Amino acid sequence: MTLSTDLYQLTMMAGYFHRDVLDTRATFELFVRRLPPHRNLLVSAGLEQGLAYLEQLCFTADEIEWLRHQAAFARVPAAFFDYLRAFRFSGDVWAMPEGTPFFPMEPILRVSAPIAEAQLVETALLAIVNFQTTVASKGIRIVRAAAGRGVMEFGARRAHGLEAALPAARAAYLAGCDATSFVEAGKTFGIPLTGTMAHSWILAAPTEIDAFTAYAELFGQHAALLLDTFDVDAATKAIVESPLRPQGVRIDSGDLAEASRSVRDRLDRAGLTTTRIIVSGDLDEWKIAALVAAGAPIDTFAVGTTLVTSDDAPALAGVYKLVEIERGGAVRGVMKRSEGKSTWPGRKQVWRVFAQGMAVRDVIALDEAGPPDAEALLKLVMRQGARAAPPISLQESRGHCRRMTDALPLSLLGIEPATDYPVQVSETLAASIR
Amino acid sequence: MTLSTDLYQLTMMAGYFHRDVLDTRATFELFVRRLPPHRNLLVSAGLEQGLAYLEQLCFTADEIEWLRHQAAFARVPAAFFDYLRAFRFSGDVWAMPEGTPFFPMEPILRVSAPIAEAQLVETALLAIVNFQTTVASKGIRIVRAAAGRGVMEFGARRAHGLEAALPAARAAYLAGCDATSFVEAGKTFGIPLTGTMAHSWILAAPTEIDAFTAYAELFGQHAALLLDTFDVDAATKAIVESPLRPQGVRIDSGDLAEASRSVRDRLDRAGLTTTRIIVSGDLDEWKIAALVAAGAPIDTFAVGTTLVTSDDAPALAGVYKLVEIERGGAVRGVMKRSEGKSTWPGRKQVWRVFAQGMAVRDVIALDEAGPPDAEALLKLVMRQGARAAPPISLQESRGHCRRMTDALPLSLLGIEPATDYPVQVSETLAASIR
Repeated sequence: MTLSTDLYQLTMMAGYFHRDVLDTRATFELFVRRLPPHRNLLVSAGLEQGLAYLEQLCFTADEIEWLRHQAAFARVPAAFFDYLRAFRFSGDVWAMPEGTPFFPMEPILRVSAPIAEAQLVETALLAIVNFQTTVASKGIRIVRAAAGRGVMEFGARRAHGLEAALPAARAAYLAGCDATSFVEAGKTFGIPLTGTMAHSWILAAPTEIDAFTAYAELFGQHAALLLDTFDVDAATKAIVESPLRPQGVRIDSGDLAEASRSVRDRLDRAGLTTTRIIVSGDLDEWKIAALVAAGAPIDTFAVGTTLVTSDDAPALAGVYKLVEIERGGAVRGVMKRSEGKSTWPGRKQVWRVFAQGMAVRDVIALDEAGPPDAEALLKLVMRQGARAAPPISLQESRGHCRRMTDALPLSLLGIEPATDYPVQVSETLAASIR
Repeated sequence: MTLSTDLYQLTMMAGYFHRDVLDTRATFELFVRRLPPHRNLLVSAGLEQGLAYLEQLCFTADEIEWLRHQAAFARVPAAFFDYLRAFRFSGDVWAMPEGTPFFPMEPILRVSAPIAEAQLVETALLAIVNFQTTVASKGIRIVRAAAGRGVMEFGARRAHGLEAALPAARAAYLAGCDATSFVEAGKTFGIPLTGTMAHSWILAAPTEIDAFTAYAELFGQHAALLLDTFDVDAATKAIVESPLRPQGVRIDSGDLAEASRSVRDRLDRAGLTTTRIIVSGDLDEWKIAALVAAGAPIDTFAVGTTLVTSDDAPALAGVYKLVEIERGGAVRGVMKRSEGKSTWPGRKQVWRVFAQGMAVRDVIALDEAGPPDAEALLKLVMRQGARAAPPISLQESRGHCRRMTDALPLSLLGIEPATDYPVQVSETLAASIR
């Protein structure tokens, strides 16, 4: 993945070599300038894949050979390519644990390393963290809107390429979804797998009830039957009049509130009271909230497109900015002053202040002592290129996400815009930019 | 990538095995039900990666072992797993060449294969084709809005994960972008690479002009200098008063029309008339069109987020539906009738009718003779699991895209909504659904 970066990271590395400052120590911070539309908070995700990327980072002989033949590198001295041959990431990384809710301008990841190393990894860290954070931040809205009902992630076919389906499933689970349909995510991350059947399964059988029966024979309690290929009522009637006792049925079109009521009623009258109703079809947090508010007897929401693409806010304006550099033996903060895009100098920490177990405000501070009753959100996760602690399991991060969101004011977790949560800047930091 | 699929594809495969219809020949078609917001047309992309996926498809021993231990597969007979061991894709595939503009309800890919094979590949084909088609369809809008000025794709850091940056760069180039900043896309697909410098390069140097000078020394004509770290005017002034003769400068913030005019003026007065002006910063087709309309002296637009995420329409409602199946020795069309999601039965062809070299209408027909002066858009690309022809180069597909879009009514290529292009249904097809 080493060439999965922007060209300018490599030319700047060669530039640092040319200026003989390769090893100048620099600190970059990853943060988001503003909340995307509809979001009251963001949920950090992707750190584990970011660390895995940093751990394995090196240039193969083939990559170096290819690079030195690129036109832009024509004047770059051979010694630079020798440097690449021995290249490993040797920096320190501080980061918010995955699943931490956070707010604009708060660094969620901080890299201190020789500048050439810290520069190279910008593109990959941003792409990895931006995307999983985008999905986790959408996921928490969907999970909370479901108000305790099940949520399954079904979105692989609409993910941004087949490869994006894997981190999407991971981030959705981290945010509290119960399962995924994407098999590779089950195999790679141990996420519970789920699925029903497609319309093609019904259409390929002589009759609908033949299709249901064959599936139930083979999958028993794992069979969930799809009702809407021809007519939901007729399909439900056929099921209750058969010996089938499916664990679930799915409705994928039409008026889901009305259909779920009539299906529930028919199932209950036939004694199929434990058969669960799954609904799907372009669901998002608003549609789910409306179905919940309408009291529709739905057990599980299967959500695809809107979750894996975060369709209302598909990109996160996460950036990775130089905030501190050694110069002339001294460490000093730096900032850009571009219109509307200025940065805050210095290496920072984010403190979350709690009162009676609930988060009441955050404080962005220089790396200094924090306020009382506050937790430092950025933890040391990598020291000199090696993990500072064993990887945190996805299950554990999912629990952390749950605990940290439960400690936030409830209004932040609704689908409506909330009053901003207070994020303050410490006096020392404020003084440093005056 | 074989387990990069939805669980139900695998359970349905086992189901087809259970019903002893694994080899029943079926035809599925991939199409889009409706145009996403703001789109007048779509551009097909991703076929090459789809075919590569089909060619390599097989189950490893490890994957099979893992699968048979999943709870859902507890009752599935061992013989099914033997079948998986020997599994290869053996179907025929018809598809529109990449870069073909197309419209809703037109199949862009058609798979005829034993049903279990055709079923398994649904998730991957959709994920691959949906995403690249999404980016190419956004790309054509951006490229056309630039009206002949250069367009560079700079979006890797905002792609949906690092892996999504590669197909995004490919689809953007296919649609007519000139270059990408994503190095792996240059190496893998031969897409021209481009880049400038980051603000960190400036901030890490003793002075801005030192930063510019060091870069120019090393990269000569490949150096494009970033003007807006502190102040665009001051940076431009420093350049024209120095011996530097950069090939390009980049402005990344502020009022780009005004800044480009004042930079152009200052450069021209100093004789730097060949220094190109590159602009960036959350550009999309509307902002580009406005800059072009304002006559801003911009040579190249660098576009990131909006292009690689297709931010205003980040998901494509592409579906893959069973349209035909052998049953009792006869081939017959099938259709689902779900509310708002019905399908058209039978294997189809799409004809584009030309008059004086310009496309005037499309006709969706059953696999029958087409109208006069029409080109069949679906071509045979895979026969019995093997490519029917050598892969088409990306360069060639890019040319095809250019020719096919040039042959469309101009209004379809603008950023404003256009009157629909006529897409008709042949009489035989219309009769089959009455």
